[in-house]
Amino acid sequence: MVQHTSTDTCPSNVHPTLTQARAPLTCQTTVMNEFGQMVDLSIPAERPLTVYVDKRELVTLMTLGARPEWLVLGYLRNQRLVSSLADIESVTVDWDVGAASVKTRSGIDHIEAKTAKRVVTTGCGQGSMFGALMDDVADLVLPPNIRLRQSQLQAVVNAIRLQESTYKSAGSVHGCALFRGDELLLFVEDVGRHNAVDTIAGWMWLQQGPAGEPMTGEDKVFYTTGRLTSEMVIKSAQMGVPVVVSRSGMTQMGLEVARQVGLCAIGRATHKRFLCFTHPERLVMDAVPEPAVASA
Amino acid sequence: MVQHTSTDTCPSNVHPTLTQARAPLTCQTTVMNEFGQMVDLSIPAERPLTVYVDKRELVTLMTLGARPEWLVLGYLRNQRLVSSLADIESVTVDWDVGAASVKTRSGIDHIEAKTAKRVVTTGCGQGSMFGALMDDVADLVLPPNIRLRQSQLQAVVNAIRLQESTYKSAGSVHGCALFRGDELLLFVEDVGRHNAVDTIAGWMWLQQGPAGEPMTGEDKVFYTTGRLTSEMVIKSAQMGVPVVVSRSGMTQMGLEVARQVGLCAIGRATHKRFLCFTHPERLVMDAVPEPAVASA
Repeated sequence: MVQHTSTDTCPSNVHPTLTQARAPLTCQTTVMNEFGQMVDLSIPAERPLTVYVDKRELVTLMTLGARPEWLVLGYLRNQRLVSSLADIESVTVDWDVGAASVKTRSGIDHIEAKTAKRVVTTGCGQGSMFGALMDDVADLVLPPNIRLRQSQLQAVVNAIRLQESTYKSAGSVHGCALFRGDELLLFVEDVGRHNAVDTIAGWMWLQQGPAGEPMTGEDKVFYTTGRLTSEMVIKSAQMGVPVVVSRSGMTQMGLEVARQVGLCAIGRATHKRFLCFTHPERLVMDAVPEPAVASA
Repeated sequence: MVQHTSTDTCPSNVHPTLTQARAPLTCQTTVMNEFGQMVDLSIPAERPLTVYVDKRELVTLMTLGARPEWLVLGYLRNQRLVSSLADIESVTVDWDVGAASVKTRSGIDHIEAKTAKRVVTTGCGQGSMFGALMDDVADLVLPPNIRLRQSQLQAVVNAIRLQESTYKSAGSVHGCALFRGDELLLFVEDVGRHNAVDTIAGWMWLQQGPAGEPMTGEDKVFYTTGRLTSEMVIKSAQMGVPVVVSRSGMTQMGLEVARQVGLCAIGRATHKRFLCFTHPERLVMDAVPEPAVASA
């Protein structure tokens, strides 16, 4: 049931051993509509995944289950529990018992202290971020010279529109995506939108350049179907991604954090429409739609 | 800054003393649209509220801030940290320091053990429920004889449509409501949808019948704009409410829990349309829309 991929043990490129646990992302059910008719429907899976770090229970994540190993890596990364991928020896997911077992190379320093504070964030539920995360914002500044062209933004929104997804077949999931310019690198869905962004963070950690250098966020664009709350902005900034695009809106604290760290936050992005909430100087307006030209 | 309401000290009716902390629910900002024009926009507030129980820090909730005292009460209730309202002497919210100070009459038994397990739920973020909550589901069974008429369901959906809201003025918040039949008792919004339901749970706790008996959920309908995930279903069932209505869809685990506890879960409810996911026997189909009659 548990199958490991091969491990690269080159010292400059020490990747953790990961399972590739698969589970169905949707299930069929029968529902009654307003006419009293019974109709078949797909709905998204939601399953508990309890994360153990060196046999110590850390947290239970409720997840769709598409990429559980990346999710666990990204969770440890975004919660700042593990600072380097090289510290992780393996992640073993077994859906039969709903467990993700993380083995570190030398333990996590001060894990008790790091997990003692509990911040229940907006999510759209009560997301859980361990307390130190908020303190880190003060140190974050995104590189100031990065720009996105409006034509690229339109291509990003269009790529999401065309993406095959669990959302299209079953609804009730959030999607996240990572772009380089307007090139789609990864699209992830989850029942929890924070799980989706954590999964992207885990995937980014696993990518390396030719010389073994880690993937950075500075030339990337992060897309989410969810709202731009403080936690979502903090996670984007932590990944080093200076432009965030959302189909939804933004909260006051998301706005304040985005202003502070230099993040260009774009909301209400559908078709060619959008609202740029913060740092509009990062947007190069090379594709202003026609009506504006007419009314100018 | 902190103002207390009067306390009723009648032994059979011991209500906690609550502040009535007020804070603006929206703020104004200026955003740039796709034409490069700067436009004014309202966005919802999002502010941290750190809950202290008998001076011990428990959790930080990110909230809109509409009814923080009810939120804190409902959080303690839904997390099963406090079993009776009579155990709470006061809740004092002070937005100047972002703190809610809860004073109990005799402490919370085993608070360390109760808060040790961490379940990061779907929310739409990573909601946080302390672990024992999931264990409680096995004991929950909602009263089997409760029915809702389809005409009442239509009235519930219509009442929500007509409700003045922060959502209409600023977007990016979730709404919850409690109905008795089709009578709207309370409408609450928050940036976190679990905060909204916790606020309702706190308000219900404060209501009492003429003989001091607590308000029960069995004749109520719970409405939420959010998805029916496992956590939302568990919270509804804990409040004893046998019918839940949502504008959104449902996840697999939400479905399984709703089936198990006897909860009638209705999703995709807009205008006269809906999908009843579980326990359709609770719905009395007294107002089937016209097209079905024509096609029958």
